[in-house]
Amino acid sequence: MDEQTLRALLEQVQRGDTGIEEALALLRRLPFDDLGFARIDTHRALRTGFPEVVYCEGKHPEHAAAIIARLAAGPGPVLATRASPEVYARVREALPAARYSDLARMIIVEREAPIRRPGTVLVICAGTADLPVAEEAALTAEVMGNHVERLMDVGVAGLHRLLAHLEQVQRATVLVVVAGMEGALPSVVAGLVRRPLIAVPTSVGYGASFGGLAALLAMLNSCAAGVMVVNIDNGFGAGYAAAMINALAAGA
Amino acid sequence: MDEQTLRALLEQVQRGDTGIEEALALLRRLPFDDLGFARIDTHRALRTGFPEVVYCEGKHPEHAAAIIARLAAGPGPVLATRASPEVYARVREALPAARYSDLARMIIVEREAPIRRPGTVLVICAGTADLPVAEEAALTAEVMGNHVERLMDVGVAGLHRLLAHLEQVQRATVLVVVAGMEGALPSVVAGLVRRPLIAVPTSVGYGASFGGLAALLAMLNSCAAGVMVVNIDNGFGAGYAAAMINALAAGA
Amino acid sequence: MDEQTLRALLEQVQRGDTGIEEALALLRRLPFDDLGFARIDTHRALRTGFPEVVYCEGKHPEHAAAIIARLAAGPGPVLATRASPEVYARVREALPAARYSDLARMIIVEREAPIRRPGTVLVICAGTADLPVAEEAALTAEVMGNHVERLMDVGVAGLHRLLAHLEQVQRATVLVVVAGMEGALPSVVAGLVRRPLIAVPTSVGYGASFGGLAALLAMLNSCAAGVMVVNIDNGFGAGYAAAMINALAAGA
Amino acid sequence: MDEQTLRALLEQVQRGDTGIEEALALLRRLPFDDLGFARIDTHRALRTGFPEVVYCEGKHPEHAAAIIARLAAGPGPVLATRASPEVYARVREALPAARYSDLARMIIVEREAPIRRPGTVLVICAGTADLPVAEEAALTAEVMGNHVERLMDVGVAGLHRLLAHLEQVQRATVLVVVAGMEGALPSVVAGLVRRPLIAVPTSVGYGASFGGLAALLAMLNSCAAGVMVVNIDNGFGAGYAAAMINALAAGA
Amino acid sequence: MDEQTLRALLEQVQRGDTGIEEALALLRRLPFDDLGFARIDTHRALRTGFPEVVYCEGKHPEHAAAIIARLAAGPGPVLATRASPEVYARVREALPAARYSDLARMIIVEREAPIRRPGTVLVICAGTADLPVAEEAALTAEVMGNHVERLMDVGVAGLHRLLAHLEQVQRATVLVVVAGMEGALPSVVAGLVRRPLIAVPTSVGYGASFGGLAALLAMLNSCAAGVMVVNIDNGFGAGYAAAMINALAAGA
Amino acid sequence: MDEQTLRALLEQVQRGDTGIEEALALLRRLPFDDLGFARIDTHRALRTGFPEVVYCEGKHPEHAAAIIARLAAGPGPVLATRASPEVYARVREALPAARYSDLARMIIVEREAPIRRPGTVLVICAGTADLPVAEEAALTAEVMGNHVERLMDVGVAGLHRLLAHLEQVQRATVLVVVAGMEGALPSVVAGLVRRPLIAVPTSVGYGASFGGLAALLAMLNSCAAGVMVVNIDNGFGAGYAAAMINALAAGA
Amino acid sequence: MDEQTLRALLEQVQRGDTGIEEALALLRRLPFDDLGFARIDTHRALRTGFPEVVYCEGKHPEHAAAIIARLAAGPGPVLATRASPEVYARVREALPAARYSDLARMIIVEREAPIRRPGTVLVICAGTADLPVAEEAALTAEVMGNHVERLMDVGVAGLHRLLAHLEQVQRATVLVVVAGMEGALPSVVAGLVRRPLIAVPTSVGYGASFGGLAALLAMLNSCAAGVMVVNIDNGFGAGYAAAMINALAAGA
Amino acid sequence: MDEQTLRALLEQVQRGDTGIEEALALLRRLPFDDLGFARIDTHRALRTGFPEVVYCEGKHPEHAAAIIARLAAGPGPVLATRASPEVYARVREALPAARYSDLARMIIVEREAPIRRPGTVLVICAGTADLPVAEEAALTAEVMGNHVERLMDVGVAGLHRLLAHLEQVQRATVLVVVAGMEGALPSVVAGLVRRPLIAVPTSVGYGASFGGLAALLAMLNSCAAGVMVVNIDNGFGAGYAAAMINALAAGA
Repeated sequence: MDEQTLRALLEQVQRGDTGIEEALALLRRLPFDDLGFARIDTHRALRTGFPEVVYCEGKHPEHAAAIIARLAAGPGPVLATRASPEVYARVREALPAARYSDLARMIIVEREAPIRRPGTVLVICAGTADLPVAEEAALTAEVMGNHVERLMDVGVAGLHRLLAHLEQVQRATVLVVVAGMEGALPSVVAGLVRRPLIAVPTSVGYGASFGGLAALLAMLNSCAAGVMVVNIDNGFGAGYAAAMINALAAGA
Repeated sequence: MDEQTLRALLEQVQRGDTGIEEALALLRRLPFDDLGFARIDTHRALRTGFPEVVYCEGKHPEHAAAIIARLAAGPGPVLATRASPEVYARVREALPAARYSDLARMIIVEREAPIRRPGTVLVICAGTADLPVAEEAALTAEVMGNHVERLMDVGVAGLHRLLAHLEQVQRATVLVVVAGMEGALPSVVAGLVRRPLIAVPTSVGYGASFGGLAALLAMLNSCAAGVMVVNIDNGFGAGYAAAMINALAAGA
Repeated sequence: MDEQTLRALLEQVQRGDTGIEEALALLRRLPFDDLGFARIDTHRALRTGFPEVVYCEGKHPEHAAAIIARLAAGPGPVLATRASPEVYARVREALPAARYSDLARMIIVEREAPIRRPGTVLVICAGTADLPVAEEAALTAEVMGNHVERLMDVGVAGLHRLLAHLEQVQRATVLVVVAGMEGALPSVVAGLVRRPLIAVPTSVGYGASFGGLAALLAMLNSCAAGVMVVNIDNGFGAGYAAAMINALAAGA
Repeated sequence: MDEQTLRALLEQVQRGDTGIEEALALLRRLPFDDLGFARIDTHRALRTGFPEVVYCEGKHPEHAAAIIARLAAGPGPVLATRASPEVYARVREALPAARYSDLARMIIVEREAPIRRPGTVLVICAGTADLPVAEEAALTAEVMGNHVERLMDVGVAGLHRLLAHLEQVQRATVLVVVAGMEGALPSVVAGLVRRPLIAVPTSVGYGASFGGLAALLAMLNSCAAGVMVVNIDNGFGAGYAAAMINALAAGA
Repeated sequence: MDEQTLRALLEQVQRGDTGIEEALALLRRLPFDDLGFARIDTHRALRTGFPEVVYCEGKHPEHAAAIIARLAAGPGPVLATRASPEVYARVREALPAARYSDLARMIIVEREAPIRRPGTVLVICAGTADLPVAEEAALTAEVMGNHVERLMDVGVAGLHRLLAHLEQVQRATVLVVVAGMEGALPSVVAGLVRRPLIAVPTSVGYGASFGGLAALLAMLNSCAAGVMVVNIDNGFGAGYAAAMINALAAGA
Repeated sequence: MDEQTLRALLEQVQRGDTGIEEALALLRRLPFDDLGFARIDTHRALRTGFPEVVYCEGKHPEHAAAIIARLAAGPGPVLATRASPEVYARVREALPAARYSDLARMIIVEREAPIRRPGTVLVICAGTADLPVAEEAALTAEVMGNHVERLMDVGVAGLHRLLAHLEQVQRATVLVVVAGMEGALPSVVAGLVRRPLIAVPTSVGYGASFGGLAALLAMLNSCAAGVMVVNIDNGFGAGYAAAMINALAAGA
Repeated sequence: MDEQTLRALLEQVQRGDTGIEEALALLRRLPFDDLGFARIDTHRALRTGFPEVVYCEGKHPEHAAAIIARLAAGPGPVLATRASPEVYARVREALPAARYSDLARMIIVEREAPIRRPGTVLVICAGTADLPVAEEAALTAEVMGNHVERLMDVGVAGLHRLLAHLEQVQRATVLVVVAGMEGALPSVVAGLVRRPLIAVPTSVGYGASFGGLAALLAMLNSCAAGVMVVNIDNGFGAGYAAAMINALAAGA
Repeated sequence: MDEQTLRALLEQVQRGDTGIEEALALLRRLPFDDLGFARIDTHRALRTGFPEVVYCEGKHPEHAAAIIARLAAGPGPVLATRASPEVYARVREALPAARYSDLARMIIVEREAPIRRPGTVLVICAGTADLPVAEEAALTAEVMGNHVERLMDVGVAGLHRLLAHLEQVQRATVLVVVAGMEGALPSVVAGLVRRPLIAVPTSVGYGASFGGLAALLAMLNSCAAGVMVVNIDNGFGAGYAAAMINALAAGA
């Protein structure tokens, strides 16, 4: 309900083409879709540039599948995160084109070839146990139309693995750096680049990692300027933010 | 010591213009400046696009002033955060052009008119007690060459104050949203825009805010996709990240 | 054992109708019912306006069912929360009229049509994963004789979904607002209404939500005046409090 | 900007009494007052039933005084919490009628005799060290037009002190119960009454009270149904909520 | 190896009855029994008045059973806590006299009628979900030779249930008070008695009880003087301490 | 108001010596003293065996002194903890016999030679920085009529200091063990004795001691059976509990 | 890529034996092995003295087995920690010489008899439930070529069990002390020896041990000088550090 | 009281040179010195290789000075940490040879030239604000007879500063790595060396560093094998441990 639409509506009221009651109703009717158990924000793509994404954890598989189906009826790609194979099985029945990443636990429905913007989102991770979160970030950015590169298993205990790829690292437009345990990798990478860097702590680690708290605090306290942090294991959020930044860089 | 310099050095060795020992020395000599008590990273502007910034808290005023003076001898602007009036007094003696923001507690030394990139960094804050942190973010982005707008005291308990500025909010290239207490403002703003948003929790609040922990956790758990978070009260970090993103958008 | 009863008893002692020992016994005999493993507070309805409610979690199903059966022998409705289907199966054998909400995990036994007070308890929730807690609140208030309305899935990342129902929101007598993740919804709603609002944090969220701690702290730190908070996932407590307030508003 | 005003505006547009551009401007102009450093929500009384309250902590005394003065220019009483004597000194110069509670650290400006609604807000506290928080709650409810009674120093280690006032306790319309240390008093009181009860944890205690955390957690976990909790030391919030509930009970 | 034994040994050395090497060996040989995987402290009964108690959690059932069997070969009763039915099954094969409490999860081996000291250990609990912990405390004190009374389900939300038993409460020699949720019961009881009181927090509660932390903190912060606290769910520790105190009172 | 008094009252009502209204009044009148700002529990000595103790922290010095004076008008000793020299100065004016411990920050008023019970309370502390808390415990137990011995600075890093006093340690009737840092001393001592042991964690330590949390958790998790714990730095509580236990042992 | 290799490379460039591009490539090519999903640090033995160790938790069994196989193709022993029997089954197929410790959950592949350095690593543990962590430490140190002794179940509640082995304890070159619950054992041992001591907290304990936090904090706050701490349950890390220290002592 | 002394004593008893009572007295008299308020462990140098060190924080300056003076009367150097200038002033009066480090806040009394062992303790710190803690570590190791090198201000945001000193880093016998904020430096260094490394978290940082908790957790979770950690800001402990390790390497 942007200003242009509002102006048009007011002009219709002025001309008498639209009655008061009808205008009131229109002003009240907002762009979402009521499934009974959920209120789908069909308006979100217009407002934020990307359709609503379905976070499946804690939702009944049936509900999750119904919401995905409803979004797939609209334009643009559909993304569902933390989706169990069970949810995917339901979705695939209705939407055979839907694909599933076992590693990232995501369902993706793309109706047309996605745009491919210039620029590169580089997803780096510290260890092999961080792969699922890193892949969630990478897939999210890809579905949103970005070129994504992956640089995996380059933790700080063996710095040469990272330094061997310094050129690739410094060439990226925006970086997503995923690490568990002590969460040191974002600080090291941020000291080497001049581009925005999004740090993702993971719950990888045991004992005093306290479910990713250690890595989260480390990243928030990075001595490298400008490191931005998302929630523990939130690869989706990092990929989404990276996509927004790269779109901006691409003039979108 | 980028690849180009390395190639040149190797060519000199190949041509015999540079001897082995000399080359070894050059490879060893790295770009920092040793003050005895500090090792100034004079190389940082080349590597990350902005000179090292001086974080004054916990440093002896004399040390802080000496580091600032040393950085001011190089090219580019100098920024010092969490600077007490006492540090500023010392700095002003040596550098009369240095200016001081009482609100943000920052010292700024600019030798030439800063570049003004296109695009706008919008700094929003929830309450008047959040002003110092918001101003730190705004000044940082300005010194780094960006156009900054400020939208202050628009907390979620009076949503209309924010909605009255919706157009300004949606026009911004990148947003910094500062809030203490329940830290809800970034979620609300992020639901309204399609641009990158950096959330800054502040330590404003009492009792169960636990020094900003409440706002920090809220922002990390934002239900709006793509919110990125920096440390509690870290206006500098947010301003720095926003500057990096806006530079990217401006093609820098 | 109110003052009136005490006065009557003393008058009986004065008249010699009741002996000292008998009076002592009466003074000692208090209104609860001893099942051996539990001491049912049969007096509670007189004292607090509603019979004791059975919290089934951690109780042996057999014990839970026995307590429910005992309460059902008294006047007034019976409410059991966090009841597993197993407990319900046992209860239904003895009390065929008992009904069960799968979503809210509650058992309800109503012997007569409940009173319907004027006024409305409005239960709002932020996301579909918050539904079980919201439903627990709604059913509790209904069983206690109140008219309840539900407004589900109106989280702050899509404010228009809430604003579309502003009239309904502002018409409510008392509001229960349920949210997980960053728990921002109660602050936003409280800024729009003049009626008491009870906030319920849920354990929905991952990583740094720390089992609902993020939402709990956010609600306790609400910048909107007068927000009242109950325990994480405690829909029952919120519904109960809302019922007490609405009863008061109705002159009960 | 409620529905009635919107309807009137639309009718004016329909009749041609108001032009499109003018209507747009009105729709955009929202009811707050911009002081430069603050955006006063002059509209709040209409929306929530009480003017904005000034939280002075962390605000510059000059700013706090200016905001209070601005609010005093409007209708209705003015309330400022966590006000230092210094702020009060500034306020009294401009507003000689302003009064100050040393105990509660509040500034109150009442232009006319406040309404006195029926019903009683009873403020109970556990120990003498809890008095400042209890008084903040009591004064807040009084300024908002309610009859307030106080019952102080009746902690659970000497239950008879509370039981001696049982009648007063059970007669109250709404209760505010303030306690530090183990925070047990609200549970005990809630088991005795049928009216809404708001619990306020205080930071009174040492060692493992962790600044009021012990009392806060205790109150959130109350085994008595329907206890509602506000932030640590937040007497204002409790008084405000109690006033809203009592207003409702009084048919306001 | 008390002073008397040491004196005897030295006298033997003086008399030449014991050689130097032999004395050294004796001084080195200490009273425990090495099972390979465990070092049983067979000396403990002499030192602390009660044999070592077997904490079964985290031990391999086979190991647990072997340790129990070894202790049963010595004098005095054997107590094993947190014992699974599986451990009990193994133990019963070797020790048919061993009995098992399903509720408290304890194995008890008594070879002779235990002493019955004067005095009473009273175990009180707040709710039926606290029963297992309360029973662990009661059984421990009984096995250690004390008369134990139980007063169950008398939480503070229905004070009259407790007050109805005031005489029993005030007659006890030492009290163990078990409560989860807000953990208020020990404070209330301690205000009514002149005898030592041991508080046991339980992990009963949900959400912000954080596994018993709420009750633990409440008990540590009790406003009633002299409340002593043991670990969360540690009924054994409380029963043991109560037994030591009652033994002291009985002149043991 | 014990059963005997109640019986007497009922007999008077039966005989007509006491009228109904008078009996009601007596039943209502409870034993505390209202100072306006405080409700002194003058009844406590009868109920719990020792008069109310004044905790001065957070109380206005004038209030603290007034409460102490009021208690001193009754029988029995008066004890005030966490008393500043300022409070003592006020108290001494009215009560010249009051004495003050600088180390323990306590005010003591004894009107007659205290009883000296048999048995010994032994107060042990780990380091010299724990002395204030240990002394608070020792003085409390002394004022309550017990013989107290002190064994200071015997931390576990030099076990021989403790073992050199083993006889004294094993002879004590009840032990109070005070320790900061890792809080290991109570576990070591409890393994050596057969008497009740109360552990007091102190806030001594830095960094990850987190204000005494490390020592508190260590003591709650003691592997020695029967260790009882009080709040951080709560020497008073430990001394009080020890006195209750020793009184019991002495047949009081 | 040490200085010697660099010097040789530069000499080759000087002599023209190596071209510029070739030298650049060599400088870029770093010693790791890319498996696609992992980047094995084959260079680590040269850099840190021991090959990369495989932490199996959170890795797909297939991935874990592949990494182990790859490492086994190189020189030196292979160590895999937190390995499930499932991983071992896969490994054994390819590497029949691999052995498995059920207790420590480790896979070990030794191709030749390990070196046996002089000196002794002594692994001490407090209780039988700490055995798995202690064994992980012991096996790690053994595989790394050290003589290891074990002293198990000597917790501080029965000090004589430890003191009986004082000579063994004081003879060790480096000590690893493993304890859960209150974690007091390292402090006691460190006060008796003059050699480096590494403390390992375990998650053994219940209630307020909070997953090993109590023991961790205790060890960090040890009053004995020089205690060094590793993560909760991190036997591997302690064994590794002990091996490095003993190697140093042995002149390696 | 080692075995040799015990043997000699027993022989004297055997020969009749020492009587039973005398031998008992000797066995009882243990090597500490009782100052009344403190029990100085004069035996510690024999047992652990270094005299007791005085931790001045929380001690009365007079007490601290007296303990230092007493230790200075014995052999070996004296070390006092966290010493205020006030303590130093007192100490210097009695011990003119005492010197003071303003930065590290340490008092040092050396009576003779300290031994200089082979090997190097390298103390590295991340930022200039970490200097006091690093200097405490360095001075401690020096006083204990070790050669110490310092490498300051080489944080991970400018890796080249560290890599420029790689040779020095790899040459060290044992490393102490001090860092605040995200505490990443120890992980990076540990990946480069084959020698023992002790990590010291500092309380440098703001907001979510939570007084050094972020750095502490990061170091405990280091992905580099064998990192050992001491308490926050505990430079002394790290220096002490490093000295013990280097002494071992030197064959001491």
